[in-house]
Amino acid sequence: MAKIKSLSEFGLIDRVSKKFNHRLRNTVLPLGDDCAAYSATSSKTQLVSTDALVENIHFKLSTISPQQLGQKAIAVNISDIAAMGGIPTRVLITLGIPKKISSSFLDQLYAGIHKTCKLYNIELFGGDTVSSPKCFFINITIIGEAEQGNIFTRDGAKKGDLIFTTGTLGDSSLGLKMLSKEKWECSSNSRKHLLKKHLTPIPRIKESRLLKKFGSRVTSMIDISDGLVQDLHHICKQSKTGATIYEENLPLSPAFSKFCSDNNLSPLPYILNGGEDYELLFTLSPDGVNNLIRQFKKAEALVTQIGEITQPSKKVSLLKKNGKREMLPQSSGFNHF
Amino acid sequence: MAKIKSLSEFGLIDRVSKKFNHRLRNTVLPLGDDCAAYSATSSKTQLVSTDALVENIHFKLSTISPQQLGQKAIAVNISDIAAMGGIPTRVLITLGIPKKISSSFLDQLYAGIHKTCKLYNIELFGGDTVSSPKCFFINITIIGEAEQGNIFTRDGAKKGDLIFTTGTLGDSSLGLKMLSKEKWECSSNSRKHLLKKHLTPIPRIKESRLLKKFGSRVTSMIDISDGLVQDLHHICKQSKTGATIYEENLPLSPAFSKFCSDNNLSPLPYILNGGEDYELLFTLSPDGVNNLIRQFKKAEALVTQIGEITQPSKKVSLLKKNGKREMLPQSSGFNHF
Repeated sequence: MAKIKSLSEFGLIDRVSKKFNHRLRNTVLPLGDDCAAYSATSSKTQLVSTDALVENIHFKLSTISPQQLGQKAIAVNISDIAAMGGIPTRVLITLGIPKKISSSFLDQLYAGIHKTCKLYNIELFGGDTVSSPKCFFINITIIGEAEQGNIFTRDGAKKGDLIFTTGTLGDSSLGLKMLSKEKWECSSNSRKHLLKKHLTPIPRIKESRLLKKFGSRVTSMIDISDGLVQDLHHICKQSKTGATIYEENLPLSPAFSKFCSDNNLSPLPYILNGGEDYELLFTLSPDGVNNLIRQFKKAEALVTQIGEITQPSKKVSLLKKNGKREMLPQSSGFNHF
Repeated sequence: MAKIKSLSEFGLIDRVSKKFNHRLRNTVLPLGDDCAAYSATSSKTQLVSTDALVENIHFKLSTISPQQLGQKAIAVNISDIAAMGGIPTRVLITLGIPKKISSSFLDQLYAGIHKTCKLYNIELFGGDTVSSPKCFFINITIIGEAEQGNIFTRDGAKKGDLIFTTGTLGDSSLGLKMLSKEKWECSSNSRKHLLKKHLTPIPRIKESRLLKKFGSRVTSMIDISDGLVQDLHHICKQSKTGATIYEENLPLSPAFSKFCSDNNLSPLPYILNGGEDYELLFTLSPDGVNNLIRQFKKAEALVTQIGEITQPSKKVSLLKKNGKREMLPQSSGFNHF
């Protein structure tokens, strides 16, 4: 009997989706993207997504404060709405609470949830609190909305489109690495930057709203939660294309580069497969590039072209600084199982 | 530092709701009922609710099959939509999966989910699958809809209204009791009935639709998940009323009565506080009673008047068969913590 370890999360979703293909009339986008979408009115599409964080799998209570955990749980769900070009509106929060958890922990957790919800004008709309025998867990369902017929999906990338990412890559996974032991060569500013990217990521709502101005020139979008390679594979698979990433273009923060060199860490695994960047990865038709650069500069938002969409092979490769090409298989992404 | 054990689920929700009172413009009903509701169009209200089931808290894998668990997880969420007078439309399913779980278990679980979704025309609309270190858990978010301005809530009961329940009470908790050991005096038919009510409850969608015909004569409604007393307290608290239940009217199945008498069990704790009945508990203004009885008879659906709404004391009492009155405090309900 196959154990779940041999199924990736994505394999499971594929298996289930194939069996489970009933669709309602007003479904705009079924499961399989960052959010699913349905149309409740002629002008607005409702976006819905759900994400769980489990103690000792996604976080350790010894390295994240309850307030940070509350902020992060909401932020990573907002990121899914941003990836669709939507605006978050409501959340439902389930907590699985073991006996070791105190009420002051819960107060601080909710303070973090509240802070992030307030910042993005999100209403707490329900939830469930249950006992959990061993581990604390949070499940968040987020609801958002977008104008009808104007959502970003994973399936529209075309050969010749350019691949962009917001922000910098690898900081979050390096922040996680940093939490694994005490002694690293690192300035306090760098430490702060890397930990912040890991513990309290900022969902790219501002950037997502900027990208709405580009309409159908943005041909696909996803948020980088599983790692650049894994998430680019999702775009390629659903768009039936291949992709090449240029190593020398990958955007790195000064803190990231310095930490890697000071501590003799090879940066590429963190950049490519680290996961939890919560940056927006998107493809753009070439005629939109100049305007994109201009708009992001004006908004003081970071965006970088990191590659291009290639032939319909569904393969992803890395063009290295030394001119060699390396294939990047899907399985190298972050995988809980 | 107060541990979570000292907070009931409801205490926690109250604390959070008070702090967290931001409401969006199109919110119809904020958190605190079986579902929260918002209006996406001028004609339809969107209902949303979320519920988690955790291994060894809500179920044991040794006493429920994966298919039954899948059916039950969806059914108890549908029950929340039924309690609002809505129609379920979509679900999002999060699974927390420990290593011991096999892929065939998941296939059977999804077969159960699929069966119930198909029966009620519900679309699987997303989800998350994550590792869980110890216990299997399922979190379901359900979306439904109702006509604008026509949902049942907990806060409209008035003095003189009559209290009704669908179906019979206590079967589910007796089914759970039966699972705790092998040797009970019980016919195989009774066993089947009681286990079915516990393992695969039928959400009262048919009854909910019947009650829609009564419009504002149905003054409040809730589904009995925490137990009759606990859930009646929710109505009384939110309606600012008291209530009296008549012991001799409480509807019991023949299997329930026989099992209790054959095994020397006192029936009242199961009926009043057993929980997981997933029947609809509602209040009706007296001028609707005759029509209610007629409509339910015609539809071959069971409904019983079990009490009446009293003065605004928020207290619930039981009028016993011997004519004595017993107060039923809120804390006697089912409580995970």
